[in-house]
Amino acid sequence: MTDIAISRRLRATPYTARVEAAGVKAYTVYNHMLLPAHFGDVEAECAHLKEHVQVWDVSCERQVEVVGPDAARLVQMMTPRDLTKAKIDQCFYIPLVDETGGMLNDPVAIKLADDRFWISVADSDAILFAKGLALGLGADVQVFEPEVDILGVQGPKADDLMARVFGEEVRAIRFFRGARLSFEGRRMFVARSGYSKQGGFEIYLNDRASGEPLWDALFAAGEDLNVRAGCPNLIERIEGGLLSYGNDMTHENNPYECGLGKFCDEGAECIGSAALAQIAQDGPSRLIRGIRIGGGKVPPCREPWRLTTSDGQFAGKVTSAAFSPAFDTAIAIGMVERDWWEPGTELSVETPEGPRPATVTTLPFNA
Amino acid sequence: MTDIAISRRLRATPYTARVEAAGVKAYTVYNHMLLPAHFGDVEAECAHLKEHVQVWDVSCERQVEVVGPDAARLVQMMTPRDLTKAKIDQCFYIPLVDETGGMLNDPVAIKLADDRFWISVADSDAILFAKGLALGLGADVQVFEPEVDILGVQGPKADDLMARVFGEEVRAIRFFRGARLSFEGRRMFVARSGYSKQGGFEIYLNDRASGEPLWDALFAAGEDLNVRAGCPNLIERIEGGLLSYGNDMTHENNPYECGLGKFCDEGAECIGSAALAQIAQDGPSRLIRGIRIGGGKVPPCREPWRLTTSDGQFAGKVTSAAFSPAFDTAIAIGMVERDWWEPGTELSVETPEGPRPATVTTLPFNA
Repeated sequence: MTDIAISRRLRATPYTARVEAAGVKAYTVYNHMLLPAHFGDVEAECAHLKEHVQVWDVSCERQVEVVGPDAARLVQMMTPRDLTKAKIDQCFYIPLVDETGGMLNDPVAIKLADDRFWISVADSDAILFAKGLALGLGADVQVFEPEVDILGVQGPKADDLMARVFGEEVRAIRFFRGARLSFEGRRMFVARSGYSKQGGFEIYLNDRASGEPLWDALFAAGEDLNVRAGCPNLIERIEGGLLSYGNDMTHENNPYECGLGKFCDEGAECIGSAALAQIAQDGPSRLIRGIRIGGGKVPPCREPWRLTTSDGQFAGKVTSAAFSPAFDTAIAIGMVERDWWEPGTELSVETPEGPRPATVTTLPFNA
Repeated sequence: MTDIAISRRLRATPYTARVEAAGVKAYTVYNHMLLPAHFGDVEAECAHLKEHVQVWDVSCERQVEVVGPDAARLVQMMTPRDLTKAKIDQCFYIPLVDETGGMLNDPVAIKLADDRFWISVADSDAILFAKGLALGLGADVQVFEPEVDILGVQGPKADDLMARVFGEEVRAIRFFRGARLSFEGRRMFVARSGYSKQGGFEIYLNDRASGEPLWDALFAAGEDLNVRAGCPNLIERIEGGLLSYGNDMTHENNPYECGLGKFCDEGAECIGSAALAQIAQDGPSRLIRGIRIGGGKVPPCREPWRLTTSDGQFAGKVTSAAFSPAFDTAIAIGMVERDWWEPGTELSVETPEGPRPATVTTLPFNA
């Protein structure tokens, strides 16, 4: 175990003091910000998440605000997903790509007004891509990072907890839709979204000083719901097939390889459209897959683990792995080359602890 | 103390196994990569750095390669420093700014050829700014991250150690100049540069497989020089006034505030030129300064500490702090507002452990 060094550059959040009081045991860094990684027992936290409700400091999901007459055009240029029919307060998962079709980020975009978007980014400074593109084009927009610090409320009891704090109207919010709701008289955007498959909400806190009161209100209201501090859970997100930019895909990958072809719309006026049309025609060379790994527990996946065939050919690589108590096997996400991506294909994976049997499957595991 | 969570997203380097064998005790994350923060005793490591020689895994100083007919124009558009007279293999510290003059990064650029640059970036994805700008402009360049993993050799005995591994010609390399030298038959760029004031070199390793052999060769050759594994040292860099992007300055700051006005050349064709000319005319509102803090040791600076006057007015903020055994006082870097930036001004700083006396000074402390 190695400590994380404290500095301003790894930004603390409005909730950090509460997260630390709740006993966070490991951080990761995401968008230059602290993201709790676990509170001491990833398996127990996974089980709790599936049964109760957790409060997550996901402030690291930073927003890129794009506002101005050219805002819709600029956002559309960065993603192959057609946003022309987007409605106000609707959320869209949008791959961001460059001219090669290589992924730069996989954010959720929210259309706040016809000329105003938030892009809730994964771990890369997509704000710099938007800024550069806008400046190069001479687009009439402003691009900046607003003071928004998301608090996630995830798990099957999330509706009950949120209703107690924000009112019954939260129950009516549909998946990937949002509403402007009040907390202590302050309006903020609340969406039904989040980085788990257990359901829940994300609160787009727009006032740092309200962070601790909001955290405290959720815990005070949720005591009988067994509310706990949590965070994106490695096991649960692999089971659910939730991809992690920087782990499971990078700029080396295009959306088709990531199983995101459904978000590549013909006719979207995107920088990467021509390259993506060619990839669509040729078909991708590899595909994101689930992998079942035999032989029990696995260490953390720090560098991609090679997948090989029985005669030693390269067949792909595993990029995230964890032992799932629910499936009673180690499970993983990886990119599998075209010749071996068929579900059921038997391969071998080179873990730091030696080779282990691996079986290709579809994602999510919990389908 | 909180652990850092292991994942592929926090990239390991060609030297990580060696760094861990050498007993790294804390990491930070920089450009999505692991950067050692200390090996257990920052003060002892500071003293050793000033007397001997250290090998640093600074792979996190990622390169942005800009190559093509429009490369020089594109790089110039991002920085107010005039690069028209740059020579091949010369290094330039260049603030990168947007149209407001706000700093996006403070890299070192190397002109490798008339149409080819490496930009060795601080902790932000400047590659995305360059990509976006190039795409928006339709510039005839390629922008990508080459496979380069810098190993630093820092300290007064760096020349002796490097001469044993790369040959006597390293001694002739002038400050911020480089040469193409061989290690085991492989040519790589070696510059006299580095993030310390103790002198030394940075080896731009261009082959991951050569990373461990290079590390081992330096340690084998340097045993009698008391070579040790090290890393950028918080005490030494504050003493030396070396700024850290994300700590001491952010996008909120312009180069003049950061004491980098000397790199803002009139006539450079940069996106931020108009904004910077206005700032130059008005004069900056605040200035980076050294701060001596009374009362002994200080905790790490995780969020800016307010500087106040005796009657409670806001006078600036401290962003990096450490106790310096050499100066027998805590020292810090901070942004001080115009009315109080005169050296010798007495202020108070609000540390997490309570208020402490603070005295404004010039940087570096060791001048």
